[in-house]
Amino acid sequence: MNKINKVLVANRGEIALRIIRACKELDIKSVAIFSEADVEGVWVRKADECYPIMGDVIQAYLDFEKIITIAKRANCDAIHPGYGFLSENADFARACEKNGITFIGPKADHIELFGDKMASKVAMKKVGVPVLEGTNEPILDVKEGVKIANEIGFPVIIKAAFGGGGRGMRIVKEQKDFSSMFESATNESLKYFGRGEVFIEKYVENPRHIEIQVIADKYGNVLHLGERDCSIQRRHQKVIEIAPSPRLNNDTRKELYRIATKAMFKLGYESVGTVEFLVDVDDNIFFIEMNTRVQVEHPVTETITGVDIIQRMIEIAEGDKLQFLQEEVQFRGYAIEFRINAENPQKNFMPSVGTVSKYLTPGGPGVRIDTSVYTGYKVPANYDSMIGKLIVWSLDWEGAVRKATRALDEFYIEGFPTNIPLHREIVRDKDFKDGKFYTNYLDKKLEKFNLDAKNHLEEEEKKVEEIHKLIDKIKNSKLNIR
Amino acid sequence: MNKINKVLVANRGEIALRIIRACKELDIKSVAIFSEADVEGVWVRKADECYPIMGDVIQAYLDFEKIITIAKRANCDAIHPGYGFLSENADFARACEKNGITFIGPKADHIELFGDKMASKVAMKKVGVPVLEGTNEPILDVKEGVKIANEIGFPVIIKAAFGGGGRGMRIVKEQKDFSSMFESATNESLKYFGRGEVFIEKYVENPRHIEIQVIADKYGNVLHLGERDCSIQRRHQKVIEIAPSPRLNNDTRKELYRIATKAMFKLGYESVGTVEFLVDVDDNIFFIEMNTRVQVEHPVTETITGVDIIQRMIEIAEGDKLQFLQEEVQFRGYAIEFRINAENPQKNFMPSVGTVSKYLTPGGPGVRIDTSVYTGYKVPANYDSMIGKLIVWSLDWEGAVRKATRALDEFYIEGFPTNIPLHREIVRDKDFKDGKFYTNYLDKKLEKFNLDAKNHLEEEEKKVEEIHKLIDKIKNSKLNIR
Repeated sequence: MNKINKVLVANRGEIALRIIRACKELDIKSVAIFSEADVEGVWVRKADECYPIMGDVIQAYLDFEKIITIAKRANCDAIHPGYGFLSENADFARACEKNGITFIGPKADHIELFGDKMASKVAMKKVGVPVLEGTNEPILDVKEGVKIANEIGFPVIIKAAFGGGGRGMRIVKEQKDFSSMFESATNESLKYFGRGEVFIEKYVENPRHIEIQVIADKYGNVLHLGERDCSIQRRHQKVIEIAPSPRLNNDTRKELYRIATKAMFKLGYESVGTVEFLVDVDDNIFFIEMNTRVQVEHPVTETITGVDIIQRMIEIAEGDKLQFLQEEVQFRGYAIEFRINAENPQKNFMPSVGTVSKYLTPGGPGVRIDTSVYTGYKVPANYDSMIGKLIVWSLDWEGAVRKATRALDEFYIEGFPTNIPLHREIVRDKDFKDGKFYTNYLDKKLEKFNLDAKNHLEEEEKKVEEIHKLIDKIKNSKLNIR
Repeated sequence: MNKINKVLVANRGEIALRIIRACKELDIKSVAIFSEADVEGVWVRKADECYPIMGDVIQAYLDFEKIITIAKRANCDAIHPGYGFLSENADFARACEKNGITFIGPKADHIELFGDKMASKVAMKKVGVPVLEGTNEPILDVKEGVKIANEIGFPVIIKAAFGGGGRGMRIVKEQKDFSSMFESATNESLKYFGRGEVFIEKYVENPRHIEIQVIADKYGNVLHLGERDCSIQRRHQKVIEIAPSPRLNNDTRKELYRIATKAMFKLGYESVGTVEFLVDVDDNIFFIEMNTRVQVEHPVTETITGVDIIQRMIEIAEGDKLQFLQEEVQFRGYAIEFRINAENPQKNFMPSVGTVSKYLTPGGPGVRIDTSVYTGYKVPANYDSMIGKLIVWSLDWEGAVRKATRALDEFYIEGFPTNIPLHREIVRDKDFKDGKFYTNYLDKKLEKFNLDAKNHLEEEEKKVEEIHKLIDKIKNSKLNIR
């Protein structure tokens, strides 16, 4: 046992706040870092201590040397990386260890292995996980790429070899589009991940994106916490995540659990992680990638299982044994997460910036909100557009969709456009309500949606005005109609 | 089946909003009523329609004739009474029926029976429920009262015969105090319930207040949804409610479930209701009263069972059969509800009024908030001081207390005093954390608590100021310490 007393949170926004809250509940001190753009961030003030990192506002959260220096100066015995930024950087995990600081996450070797999308496919195949047909080496040359694509057969998908989160991916349906797609995938990969290598895989049409949350301690206990259905995506970016998948065949579900936990056991994985699969219309399963960190969508799993993933992740890093058995994990009801993004659905989801002028959140049963937004908060332009998450829960799928509809209608963020109008359309769509959605759902639906959605808050304010007028009228009336 | 299409919500505040939300999720239209003092109430604007009731602002929610007239004019087929106001008025339930409107609640005869605290004891005794020794007739004369109290043996408790909610109750430890207590109980009873009759019971010292949530359809299916521990009270008013009771003996728990469901089955009860018991130090059980309505504290039961009590209550009124069996009710973890009151803990909990100048709520996993408060809301002076409820949940009791501590520390309501500082002290108290509390808990603890609590928001704002100063200092520094 290696009791953690103080954690540096090497992240920002809602996930930084989420980790700080977990620390508070475990009686662990927390230390925030922040860039010049994030002085007003809620997580900064909620942490027990906070340290600015000046200079480039993105680099602030990527600069290991400075971050480790702060951690040592503040006597932190551990660092939680959240998601994004340094969370899947094996060198950072190693640098923490070298400096006697516990990295709250998996072993550096596993981060490295799964960071290489091709090597991880090879490794997973070895431990019995079905993978997609494709190349095991980076494709450096467009001509070689075309040749391989023809061998595999179109459609194919070009993927960043050292990427993730949907960046640097291109679907190629016909040979004539290959070279332009190859170029743009390479460029995007270089931009986001600093490395331009890409590889090629068979493209599965209209699959579901199903991922298994695994949790493993240092003693070989590997459990799953069920699956998440993340098929609702826009440009390979998840928009809505659901647990459990409302229409997944139960045998397929069990097979996914078995495959994922067996593989992680064989590889000696520890901490939390997510094994991502595609499931095609015939229930064929294909591993796509493994995320060696907590994910944006972890709350849906927490909601249906009651397991606090961040807290358990910290305890595993302390050397704790998992305190529950697989058969003790109770799955209850359905949870849906809506990513709330500062972006304009009417302008091709262009990121929006501004100050939150009005902020009213839904409440009542089955509603969870994870955000660092508040009235008066100025959203910085420098970061990812996700500013919060709404998670709803109900005992059944239909109830969860109705809960979502009610909660989204109550959610008001004024000051800049958000994607709430998109979510409001999705939950009212029959295919969504029926659980009939695949990764191409939004491609097909977007143009049919009315994203010029009515302003609910404006309507409500008009209503209040009318109520006032009515009351005045009654009061001023000479007739005694009281 | 008697499908409900439109519900008039004959209540105000958080419970009105709770019912409107349930209606929205069931695709049922909702109609709000409001007094002149409640024009700004959130529930008024969230309902599909709203109607003012002019004149006395309390009477507005008690005036059956006007309420039924509005219900008929608006084509409501049902009325939900919430708690308080008309919720336990059998005549109102009958008036609804007479006008062809479904009263969402139990049968009028049951409301009437359990409204009479003495008659209900007699009835419950007949169906095998253990009751406290005491009188079955109202005591009209102080001399007769003293005589009876001596027969029962001091300490005794004087209770309003037609009361509830802790009003019109007095504990008498010695004979010399009897007449003054008798008088004040009678007066309070008259003030709150319009009837001054009281009765006398043996007083149980240091019991737990344990109540069983029952739910029953029209077809004889009676289930329980577990117990709530409401021992944390101030002047017989519940302050904190917990599900399940953290230290209740498991055999006692099962016996309470058995007694409560058996009694309700024998009496043919329908809708939701709460059977309240005292459990003494030797695990003796005594029925005290039955509440024939949804209770303030229903969310803790919803949170551990996942059952939406208000929605199921509406469906039962529609004639639905309960869709689940007793053995299908899964109990998971611990939930704690904190009543947030506009009152000043430093001034003997005197009700406070004012406008909400700052309002910041806790979020993240395991946090539910039921309130109609928002920034800018003016709390009217005319009603009960409860302005909202914070409900927290965790898989274990210790986790729930830690969650509560974190959430209460994040909860800021500025503009007037609230009882949040009291809650913050309770969750840090060892006896509370150990589950060692009985109905006298607050009597013993209050003077030890520091209710001159530090202002967390002020501290946070100072911190933000310091952060800004630090950043400015770094920027203006001639040394390049960036």
